[in-house]
Amino acid sequence: MSAEPFLREIGGGVCAARGVTASAVTAGIKKSGRPDMTLLCFDPPAQSAGVFTRNKVCAAPVLLCRERVGKGPLRAILINSGNANACTGKQGLQDARRLTQSLAKHLGCPPAQVVMSSTGLIGQPLPVGLMERALGRLVRSLAPGKGREAATAIMTTDTRSKEAAVEIELPGGGSVRLGGMTKGAGMIAPNMATMLAYLTTDAAVSSRVLLSALRKAADLSFNCVTVDGDTSTNDTVIFAATGASGVRIPGGKALGRFRAGLGRVCRELALAILRDGEGVTKVVEIRIKGAASPADAKRAGRTVAESLLVKTAFFGGLPNWGRIFAAAGRSGAKIAPERMSLRIGGVPVVRAGAPVEHWEAPLAPVLKRPEFTVELHLGAGRAEGTVWTTDLSYEYVKINADYRT
Amino acid sequence: MSAEPFLREIGGGVCAARGVTASAVTAGIKKSGRPDMTLLCFDPPAQSAGVFTRNKVCAAPVLLCRERVGKGPLRAILINSGNANACTGKQGLQDARRLTQSLAKHLGCPPAQVVMSSTGLIGQPLPVGLMERALGRLVRSLAPGKGREAATAIMTTDTRSKEAAVEIELPGGGSVRLGGMTKGAGMIAPNMATMLAYLTTDAAVSSRVLLSALRKAADLSFNCVTVDGDTSTNDTVIFAATGASGVRIPGGKALGRFRAGLGRVCRELALAILRDGEGVTKVVEIRIKGAASPADAKRAGRTVAESLLVKTAFFGGLPNWGRIFAAAGRSGAKIAPERMSLRIGGVPVVRAGAPVEHWEAPLAPVLKRPEFTVELHLGAGRAEGTVWTTDLSYEYVKINADYRT
Repeated sequence: MSAEPFLREIGGGVCAARGVTASAVTAGIKKSGRPDMTLLCFDPPAQSAGVFTRNKVCAAPVLLCRERVGKGPLRAILINSGNANACTGKQGLQDARRLTQSLAKHLGCPPAQVVMSSTGLIGQPLPVGLMERALGRLVRSLAPGKGREAATAIMTTDTRSKEAAVEIELPGGGSVRLGGMTKGAGMIAPNMATMLAYLTTDAAVSSRVLLSALRKAADLSFNCVTVDGDTSTNDTVIFAATGASGVRIPGGKALGRFRAGLGRVCRELALAILRDGEGVTKVVEIRIKGAASPADAKRAGRTVAESLLVKTAFFGGLPNWGRIFAAAGRSGAKIAPERMSLRIGGVPVVRAGAPVEHWEAPLAPVLKRPEFTVELHLGAGRAEGTVWTTDLSYEYVKINADYRT
Repeated sequence: MSAEPFLREIGGGVCAARGVTASAVTAGIKKSGRPDMTLLCFDPPAQSAGVFTRNKVCAAPVLLCRERVGKGPLRAILINSGNANACTGKQGLQDARRLTQSLAKHLGCPPAQVVMSSTGLIGQPLPVGLMERALGRLVRSLAPGKGREAATAIMTTDTRSKEAAVEIELPGGGSVRLGGMTKGAGMIAPNMATMLAYLTTDAAVSSRVLLSALRKAADLSFNCVTVDGDTSTNDTVIFAATGASGVRIPGGKALGRFRAGLGRVCRELALAILRDGEGVTKVVEIRIKGAASPADAKRAGRTVAESLLVKTAFFGGLPNWGRIFAAAGRSGAKIAPERMSLRIGGVPVVRAGAPVEHWEAPLAPVLKRPEFTVELHLGAGRAEGTVWTTDLSYEYVKINADYRT
């Protein structure tokens, strides 16, 4: 990660931004007795923006978020694990409305200022009664400094909580904070480890600017990582700006730094998901160069990143570079085989479409590292793109063949 | 498989058709000492048609086949395992030309009447000298009735040989034979179990009609099975018609039966590949109904068929139907969630977008079967499509993480 001198990593996660409080309780949705309801609260109410799953089978809370996020000030986000409220028909949306309405009453704000996310089993009605009874406790225990607690309570198959935050020094002096938390470990419905992420800042930013910054940042982070290529029905990223720092981001250089801070936090969270991916033993950065267009770079990168043969080769530490070429070749991206080249962990393997001499010995130690970079040049143009992927291990199969709670 | 009264399954595989001889020898390309060169010979020379990998990283023998197959009578097909002759630059194509030229000399025919296929390691030059020395033995041992021997010699990671043949009774009396062999077990470069298939008939058919029939049949068979979604650099299907039965296929009803016979043989061979897929414990037929278009049906079917989460659920025998819905939802196919329905092995699971009552108990025994059908209705139209897939087991990961000979 390149050093940006105006960014300083800080603690606090999603609560690093002033004006953000959080709480988490056990409502009993999960049988395990672990915390399963989380609340984020914004005071003053926040400007907001969201990006959501493109899956056409999309869960009720996502429909609700699409109605409300970015449409007016946001007071609170309710998050539950243990039940995805997906494939639950009209009842699902009614349940989500009822819960946000009850929560709004507790908080003394209009229902339109409250949204929710759900993650867990598909096709089962939400235990609304149980959840409503927990709302009072959630509201009473709201406090700043509970970023870790919140990040822990949204975990499902995750093995560790995932948070990040930075302080952004602005060009004219003064600074703002930006933090976030995420969950997700690679699998989806009906026991989904949906990718959920919540980002907060105490900068004063309009929802329009937030949305544009969020789209770009999500596209270069969450949308560039893949564990198994499956898109959940519930994927959600929400970005809320309380403005509690009193510092406005006017645009220009300040906005550039703000975007850089957002980019950093999103990338850290996205990579944290990969590193905690189910059965993951390796994280690999796939850099595509020499593509005919950015879309081609992404296409080739994703196809390499999602190839089972490439992923099993990473797991086995095999120098089977032909699998990488074959994946790029079937990706639909324009390629010039005789001009293609490949470096793995900096070691030249293929040049001008043919293997270099003695590539195998220097490659062996690279393939044993837990993280390395694959740089594939398509020989077809000047565009570039990066995606991050993982290996595919016995453990991934075991987790996903056994997992039903 | 529906019974077609005019088709009779027969033995003989690729040599079932009159005018086809075969042989196989150990040339020493593979270190194992197993047969690694195979020859199919046509007398009289055959009309031919071929379909090849769409991978843009495509092996030298495929380039050679594209030049020659369907362009004039075909006398012989040479097939080697142990070396894919892919990513071998100009040298690769020169080597393939030289070998087919030498073989043509042995057979006393023009080089343009000889083609070859290769399967094995990527990025290594063909051992041309070794292979040339084996040509005489290959030609001398040509004989009819060696279908099984040929099918066995083209195996790589396959655990059993794969052949099929039918006799087709024609409307006006008389009959023709159509047979074939295939290899492939799911993985590709650089130790690829490339999908290679060779089909023969003793009917007299023009190369134009052969090609149209082959494209359709391959599209409904080889192009509809997936083990890991990876397309090899060397995939090849060649169909050769010797005409040795003396029976012409004039078109009309006779052509319909001929196509049905071809379809049957291709489907059997394609399913044989799946059943012998690496680490496969289950073969599942995915039938998509209610799609807005045939392309949408295929898109949804393939996305479900290739989802790691769906495949691991099949392996574990898990009733995680939400994974099937989520895969269809991200496929890009048009869907109407509230009209979608799902049956697994005939058991209704979802109706009108919501789970039916008591679906779980009747489903349990279905998911233990080695083969069953998933029928997913997208609620978006009237088009249909079928793809076949496998589960994803520990063994698949093991084979592909360890495999480098």
